[in-house]
Amino acid sequence: MADLLSDEEATGKVKEVYEEIRDNFGMIPNFFRAQAAANPEWLELNWLRWKNIMGFEGSLDRKTKELIAVAVSITNNSRYCMQAHEAMALMKGASTGDIVETKKVVELFASYNNIADSLDIPCDISPDKVKGSKDRL
Amino acid sequence: MADLLSDEEATGKVKEVYEEIRDNFGMIPNFFRAQAAANPEWLELNWLRWKNIMGFEGSLDRKTKELIAVAVSITNNSRYCMQAHEAMALMKGASTGDIVETKKVVELFASYNNIADSLDIPCDISPDKVKGSKDRL
Amino acid sequence: MADLLSDEEATGKVKEVYEEIRDNFGMIPNFFRAQAAANPEWLELNWLRWKNIMGFEGSLDRKTKELIAVAVSITNNSRYCMQAHEAMALMKGASTGDIVETKKVVELFASYNNIADSLDIPCDISPDKVKGSKDRL
Amino acid sequence: MADLLSDEEATGKVKEVYEEIRDNFGMIPNFFRAQAAANPEWLELNWLRWKNIMGFEGSLDRKTKELIAVAVSITNNSRYCMQAHEAMALMKGASTGDIVETKKVVELFASYNNIADSLDIPCDISPDKVKGSKDRL
Amino acid sequence: MADLLSDEEATGKVKEVYEEIRDNFGMIPNFFRAQAAANPEWLELNWLRWKNIMGFEGSLDRKTKELIAVAVSITNNSRYCMQAHEAMALMKGASTGDIVETKKVVELFASYNNIADSLDIPCDISPDKVKGSKDRL
Amino acid sequence: MADLLSDEEATGKVKEVYEEIRDNFGMIPNFFRAQAAANPEWLELNWLRWKNIMGFEGSLDRKTKELIAVAVSITNNSRYCMQAHEAMALMKGASTGDIVETKKVVELFASYNNIADSLDIPCDISPDKVKGSKDRL
Repeated sequence: MADLLSDEEATGKVKEVYEEIRDNFGMIPNFFRAQAAANPEWLELNWLRWKNIMGFEGSLDRKTKELIAVAVSITNNSRYCMQAHEAMALMKGASTGDIVETKKVVELFASYNNIADSLDIPCDISPDKVKGSKDRL
Repeated sequence: MADLLSDEEATGKVKEVYEEIRDNFGMIPNFFRAQAAANPEWLELNWLRWKNIMGFEGSLDRKTKELIAVAVSITNNSRYCMQAHEAMALMKGASTGDIVETKKVVELFASYNNIADSLDIPCDISPDKVKGSKDRL
Repeated sequence: MADLLSDEEATGKVKEVYEEIRDNFGMIPNFFRAQAAANPEWLELNWLRWKNIMGFEGSLDRKTKELIAVAVSITNNSRYCMQAHEAMALMKGASTGDIVETKKVVELFASYNNIADSLDIPCDISPDKVKGSKDRL
Repeated sequence: MADLLSDEEATGKVKEVYEEIRDNFGMIPNFFRAQAAANPEWLELNWLRWKNIMGFEGSLDRKTKELIAVAVSITNNSRYCMQAHEAMALMKGASTGDIVETKKVVELFASYNNIADSLDIPCDISPDKVKGSKDRL
Repeated sequence: MADLLSDEEATGKVKEVYEEIRDNFGMIPNFFRAQAAANPEWLELNWLRWKNIMGFEGSLDRKTKELIAVAVSITNNSRYCMQAHEAMALMKGASTGDIVETKKVVELFASYNNIADSLDIPCDISPDKVKGSKDRL
Repeated sequence: MADLLSDEEATGKVKEVYEEIRDNFGMIPNFFRAQAAANPEWLELNWLRWKNIMGFEGSLDRKTKELIAVAVSITNNSRYCMQAHEAMALMKGASTGDIVETKKVVELFASYNNIADSLDIPCDISPDKVKGSKDRL
C-alpha cells in the first residue's frame, strides 16, 4: 500500500501544490499524497498536467472530460480511477443516467473494437476524408 | 482480410439492416459488411445494440458518445475504430480542437491509471459517497 | 522486421528443433525462425513449451486448443498469431462456422468482462462452490 | 459496489428475463441483477446476446464456449468473469484437467503473442491460404 | 483462491524443483506452489524458463531484469507480480529511488505509447537504421 | 496519419523546444512534431516530462531506462515506440544481446503475470516485508 504524505509533512513546493489541489477538489486525494511521498517532482509534473488538461476550460467542458476519464479507467481496469472519476463526474453535474450511458458506450466499443480487429476489416472511413470534404465546402 | 457482403448479395433481414445503416451513416461501413458476410444474426444483434446505445438520444448527445468511442478505441489500440469514430465525431459536430482535447484526456489517464495501480493507492473517493451526500440534501 | 534463420544456417540443436517443427507443421513458421536468429536457447525453450502444451494430447483435443489460441490472440490484438492460429484451427478440423462462433464468444466476453468490471459486481459464482457440491455427491 | 435488483423488485420485461435466466442457470447471477438495476434495456440486450451466442447450440458445444470464455476473461484479467466461467465450465462437463489445460494454453499465448509482436514477425501463415488450398480440392 | 502444494506433499521431480527454488529465493513462493498443485509438468516448464531467463547471468544483471519485471507487471496490472518483483528488486540491490524511477518511466510510456497510437505517427527511428550506421563504422 | 510540424513552421516556444530536442536526439522525432502540430502546449508538457524522467540522471542510467521503455512499449503493443526505443537503447550503449534479453524477460512476465492472475494466487512476498527486514538491521 502506498505511503501517503500528510498535510503536516507537506512543505515548500509540495505545500503550494496541496493548496491548489484543495482549491480544486475540496480535499487532497490519496492519488496526489502518494506521489508526494514517493517523489515531489513527480507530483509537481502530474499536477501541472492536470491543470493543463482537466482544469483548463478548453473546447470540452469538465463534465465531458470526467466521463471520458471514466471510460478510459474502465477500459484500463483501474479500480481507484474508476471510482474517483465516477464520483467526480457526478460532482461536475453528470446524472447517474449519464454514467450508465457512458458504461454502455464503453462496453459497446469493447466488443466493436474486438470485432474490427478479429475480422481484420479494411479501413473505409477516416478523419482525413471528413476534413477533406469540409475543406472543399 | 475480411469478406465483405455487397449490396447485391444482401437479401431478407440483412437488406433491411443495410437500409437502416445507410439511413444513419449515408453508407454501409465495412465493419457491418464483414459481420453480414460472417454471420447475419451477428450483424442483426450488433446493429440492434448500435441503435439502442449510439442511435438513441438518451442523456448524452451523440457527439459526446462519439468522443467516448474515440477514447475507448485509442485505449484498446483498435485502428479501424479509432479512424472511424474520429471521423464520426467530426461529422456529428466535434471540432478538431475537441478531438485533440479528447486525446489529451486519454493519454493523461493512461498514465494516471498506471500510477494509481503501481502505487497501490487506497480508495478515498467513491460514487457512493457523492450520491450519499446528495441524498442528504 | 525480424531477422529469420534459414534452413541452411540451422546447425546443431536448432537443426534438430527445426526438424521437429517441420514434422508438426509441414514448414518452419517465421515465429520460430525469428527466435532461432535472436537466441537459440529461446527457441529451444519455447519449442519445448509448444510440445508440452499444444503438441501433447491431454484432456483437450488440438482443435479446441487452437480455438482457444485464436481467442487469446484476438484479445491481445496480436495480428501474426490471430492469422496463424485461425489457419491452424482450420487445418486441425475446425469449420469456418467454428471460427465465427469463436469470434462471437470472444467479443461477447470483451464486453461482459468490461461490464462486470465497470459495475464492480460482487462475486456470487465460483469454481470452489461447484467443486464443493460435486465432492458432496 | 453495484446496486442489484432483487426478485421482488423485478417487474414486466425484467421479470420475464429473470425467469429465462433462472431456467438456464438455476439462479440469477449478480452480473444480470446489476444491469437490471442500472438500466433494464441494457439487461434485455445483453440477455438476447447471451441466448444467441452462448445458449444456442451452434457448431461449438457449450463446454468449449465456456472454456473460451475462461480464456478471454483471464486475458482481460476480469476477476468476476474468471470465477463465474470456470464454475460454469465445470457445470457443463469440463474436468479440472480441462481447466488447467486451458490456463496453460492461455499463458502460452500470452507470451507467444508478445514474442510475435516484439520481434515484428512477417506473416507467413494465413487462413486465406488454408481455405484456398481446401477450395482447390 | 489457488490450491497450494506444501513441502510435505512435494515428491519426486517437484521436490527437486522446490529445492532449487529455495536455493534461489530462500522460500517457495505461492506462485510456484500453485503450479505444482495444478500440474507438476507446468511447474517444471516454468521453473526451467526462470532459470534460463532470470537466473542466468547473461548480458543484463539480475537487478535490471527485476526492474523490467516490475515494469511489465505494472503495465499488465498484475497485483501479485507487482508486489513480488518490487520486493525482489529491493533484495537484489535496487534502492527505493530506483523503484520510484522505474514507476515514473513506466507511466511516462503508458502515455507516450498512447499518444503515438492516437496520432498514428509514421515511424522515423528504427533499430535497423542504428545497426546499419554502426555497421558502416 | 498525423500532421507533422516542420522546422520552418516552428516559432516561439515550439522553436525553443525543438532546439532542446535536437540537442538530445540529433533530430526531431515525428512523435514530437505531431504533438506540435496538434497542440503546442501538449508538446511543451510532454517535453518537460521527458527531460524530468528520461533526460535527468537520477538513480537509473539512461540505458536502463530505455530498456524499460522498450519493455513497456512491447507490453502495450505500440509499434512506433517499440521501434524508437529499441533504436535509442542501442544508441545509449545497449548491445543486441541486451535487447534480446529484455524481450525474453518481457515474454516471461507476460505469461507469469497471466498465471498469477488465472490461479488467483495469494500474495506472500511484498516490498513492505523486505523494507521492514532491512529497517530492523
